[in-house]
Amino acid sequence: MTNSLDNQRHTLAHLLAAAVLEHYPHAKLTLGPATGTGFYYDVDFTGGAAAGDDDLKRLESTMRRLLPTWTSFTHETVTAEAARDRFAGNPYKLELIDEISARGETITLYTAGTFTDLCRGGHSENPAAEIAPDSFQLEKVAGAYWRGNEKNAMLTRIYGLAFEGKAELDAHQARLAEAKERDHRKLGRELDLFTFSELVGSGLPLYTPRGTILREELGGFSESLQRAAGFEKVWIPHITKIDLYKTSGHWDKFGHELFLVTSQESSDSFALKPMNCPHHTQVYASKPRSYRDLPVRYMETTTCYRDEKTGELGGLTRVRSLTQDDAHVFCRPDQIEDEFRAIMQMIKTMYGALGMQFTARLSYHDPEAKENYLGDEALWQEAEEKIEAVAKQLGLDYVIARGEAAFYGPKIDIMVIDALGREWQCATEQLDFVQPERFGLTYTDKDGQKKTPVMIHKALLGTIDRFLGVYIEHTNGRFPLWLAPEQIRIIPVSEQHLPFAEAVTNHLKSRGVRAEAALADDSLGKRIRAAKQMKVPYVAVVGDKEVEANAVALENRDGEKDTVSIDALIERLTTEISEKHL
Amino acid sequence: MTNSLDNQRHTLAHLLAAAVLEHYPHAKLTLGPATGTGFYYDVDFTGGAAAGDDDLKRLESTMRRLLPTWTSFTHETVTAEAARDRFAGNPYKLELIDEISARGETITLYTAGTFTDLCRGGHSENPAAEIAPDSFQLEKVAGAYWRGNEKNAMLTRIYGLAFEGKAELDAHQARLAEAKERDHRKLGRELDLFTFSELVGSGLPLYTPRGTILREELGGFSESLQRAAGFEKVWIPHITKIDLYKTSGHWDKFGHELFLVTSQESSDSFALKPMNCPHHTQVYASKPRSYRDLPVRYMETTTCYRDEKTGELGGLTRVRSLTQDDAHVFCRPDQIEDEFRAIMQMIKTMYGALGMQFTARLSYHDPEAKENYLGDEALWQEAEEKIEAVAKQLGLDYVIARGEAAFYGPKIDIMVIDALGREWQCATEQLDFVQPERFGLTYTDKDGQKKTPVMIHKALLGTIDRFLGVYIEHTNGRFPLWLAPEQIRIIPVSEQHLPFAEAVTNHLKSRGVRAEAALADDSLGKRIRAAKQMKVPYVAVVGDKEVEANAVALENRDGEKDTVSIDALIERLTTEISEKHL
Repeated sequence: MTNSLDNQRHTLAHLLAAAVLEHYPHAKLTLGPATGTGFYYDVDFTGGAAAGDDDLKRLESTMRRLLPTWTSFTHETVTAEAARDRFAGNPYKLELIDEISARGETITLYTAGTFTDLCRGGHSENPAAEIAPDSFQLEKVAGAYWRGNEKNAMLTRIYGLAFEGKAELDAHQARLAEAKERDHRKLGRELDLFTFSELVGSGLPLYTPRGTILREELGGFSESLQRAAGFEKVWIPHITKIDLYKTSGHWDKFGHELFLVTSQESSDSFALKPMNCPHHTQVYASKPRSYRDLPVRYMETTTCYRDEKTGELGGLTRVRSLTQDDAHVFCRPDQIEDEFRAIMQMIKTMYGALGMQFTARLSYHDPEAKENYLGDEALWQEAEEKIEAVAKQLGLDYVIARGEAAFYGPKIDIMVIDALGREWQCATEQLDFVQPERFGLTYTDKDGQKKTPVMIHKALLGTIDRFLGVYIEHTNGRFPLWLAPEQIRIIPVSEQHLPFAEAVTNHLKSRGVRAEAALADDSLGKRIRAAKQMKVPYVAVVGDKEVEANAVALENRDGEKDTVSIDALIERLTTEISEKHL
Repeated sequence: MTNSLDNQRHTLAHLLAAAVLEHYPHAKLTLGPATGTGFYYDVDFTGGAAAGDDDLKRLESTMRRLLPTWTSFTHETVTAEAARDRFAGNPYKLELIDEISARGETITLYTAGTFTDLCRGGHSENPAAEIAPDSFQLEKVAGAYWRGNEKNAMLTRIYGLAFEGKAELDAHQARLAEAKERDHRKLGRELDLFTFSELVGSGLPLYTPRGTILREELGGFSESLQRAAGFEKVWIPHITKIDLYKTSGHWDKFGHELFLVTSQESSDSFALKPMNCPHHTQVYASKPRSYRDLPVRYMETTTCYRDEKTGELGGLTRVRSLTQDDAHVFCRPDQIEDEFRAIMQMIKTMYGALGMQFTARLSYHDPEAKENYLGDEALWQEAEEKIEAVAKQLGLDYVIARGEAAFYGPKIDIMVIDALGREWQCATEQLDFVQPERFGLTYTDKDGQKKTPVMIHKALLGTIDRFLGVYIEHTNGRFPLWLAPEQIRIIPVSEQHLPFAEAVTNHLKSRGVRAEAALADDSLGKRIRAAKQMKVPYVAVVGDKEVEANAVALENRDGEKDTVSIDALIERLTTEISEKHL
């Protein structure tokens, strides 16, 4: 996105506001910024008619009629009193003016055509010349609280899309349509992957056998990479006394966000764990450690619980029950670089096998604001250098975000890019100089001294539920063979070929292939279509010819057909599965 | 246990009471029954000295002194008034007399020697002749509430052990010592299997890498048996809205025992699941089912939470976080027998592989009290016949417990017998005629009608934590090879043999064997002893000779030694593992 596109979008927010005032003179304007795909303006329509989805075409026409008259943007600096006079009767603008004034900043008014708004600037210099009339479109109307706070008045937010030109706008709309088609909630139903129950509650998905295979295969892949890198599985309960979080420091920071667990028969009380690190420190602490024992690497695929607001829940990308492929390394400072490299290598291998690109965001501390961070400054500096060295060595596409580190250590966040070009934060790798000390973790070093280990938090997939939501949309439900819940369906032409279909199915199953035999209960065409609707990677039809030749008529999802012997079929499938073909 | 042994034990309770009165004339006797290993008597010592552990030898001598004078037991029937006169001043006996009298039963007094007690009988006819003086022993003193109610007075319970003779008493004491030696809490620490943290809370074990291997191997074995029998894995969250249990009926019955989960930011509230069946019904309910789709078989290794009282928690046999190898079958009534047989066959296979005997307890309904059960009487009768048919076919050692069924259906409980002869309820298989109806579950039958499926609840291991506690003691930590966290340790004679030891270790690891190489950091003898203390099934030493011969000097836990080539070693270990040798 170019800066000029930002300016165009911001300009269009003003143009929308001008059009709103023409049709709804009673409307009170509030705020209208640019967004990543266009712009919006929040309007208070109290006291008269309100714009709805049906009014968008009319507002859009008015915007297009006004645009040629907006040949420049001028601005003036005014006193707070002058601004208050101008916006008298609009409590929203008055609130903004009071705040700007309280901060001692100058107050500016921007004018284009006959429309003036309180604004900090950042517009097209000549909107009529710079903005193509067919590069934008009003999208929808939604409710929004003033400043996002549900205690405030509910306003009407009018959304617009805006791009460099018509081609880009069309492309975006095609992506939106594609995204709707790929919506994982829709595919989740169609492919029978997960369900929700009103009796269980929102944000709490239940996985069917097919969805559970996806969870297990993804989690199992993550575990196998970690096992090869020396990680060992541990197991922790999902609840803990709050004392654990008082010690870790999480209680002070996030205590109010925890789900609390209470006994009805005693005064015992617990919290549902929202993360695993404090529990894992207690496994580390269960026996004395020597410098030779380090790194100690614990991994676990386990479910955390977070109190997401009901209104924010939908599908798998935001859930209350988050199953994570979490891990924690306890190491000496001199082991940080090797451990960081090994983890980053796993992330590369994993997303390579999943067919997804990613970029890395290196979140560092701000040396100008040392007071925001805990831990030794020299350790921070050294660690950050090592992290960048690893990123360079592995040829990562990375940016450094100075000042974005957590208070306890620098980190790498992995932004995975899906087939529609959307970015998702999935994997993460974080250094932690603080928690080991809070829990009094130690190891005995070569010199006989007790020292504090460094902790590394890492997740490859992050939250498996969320990743699955992303991956269903990325693949449009066409999972790679190794991941597909049903890998091949054997379809008998008629009843008499069913025993052969079942024999082939059992043979494949005994070799670890997820094969299903279809019944001969409908027309062949319908049964083949049913298998394709379920996006089964391979469909194998068996009739007289195939029974005689001990073979199947095979078709993949791209429509490529081939007759292959049973032996060749097994060889082909098991190879594609073990090599994780995409 | 013979009836005569019961009588001996009951007689010894009287003898203890007589001895107590000799030494503590102020003592008030209450109740003194026989137990499975001896007897006890509860005494109120208020108003004078109380017997403690140090007084047991003295009481025992007195019992042995009195025993020869107890050559008969006589009894007389008395009126309530006469009895009240006799026990005036003893409120416990008076309470018992009032109760017997209120029930309209006769009141009997039993006398041996000079001691008379309120009693229903069941004694040795000639104690002096029938009871060997060395067949019993006073064991310990403990506190006990009158009639087990904590609102009542605290009494002193004096426990005794009693067996047929000295040999049997000695054998029991040897078993007790052995049980102490095998205590899984002790072995859990020594073998580094699990830990508890005061910050996390009691009853909430955390499993170290070694303990997690045990959990995963046991759970994985259970899953593999189930998968072969057509069970499919599903996944459910650990919490649910209470609505789920209101619908299932659990809320009314067990609501107060649930851990409640509350949001601090909204009014949402949940419960931690104490069982999985209601959640699994919601997966079944996620789409329409036809008679051809049944049986639908869901399995899951998942953690439930139960609010056990803190005082009752200890080790793994009673925990608050219970991980279960749970499963639910939804089937037609005509499929019950096949499903029951398949599950029972899995139980046989599983405990066979684990080297444990079991007996089966068939809990049936009481046809005389039909009002206690829900569901169709004919279905109950038919199901119970089928269950017994299965038990017979599979040659189970079973008893029928009429009247012990749950209100929702008959069941089989499996009592596993450990190496010390103790029985543990582990596996279970239960029919359920009620829950499917409460949740409105249906399938469309051949005739097009909607019908209600029958549900079968089953667990092979039951609670894995609890089973692990039992199995650690059963095996004394000498796990079969396939289960052992560390299967073989390769010990280099000296530093120069370390590279060979590591090469062998890696070779074994690549073949899926859990091998570890020891460092050459201590004397060879000490390092071999360390491996044996960890009960590692195989210890392999490598020195000059072995390096030259590409072999290892192998020793198993029974001390059998053998020099084997690397190829033979791999063959031997992988075969023993895949065949699950004991």
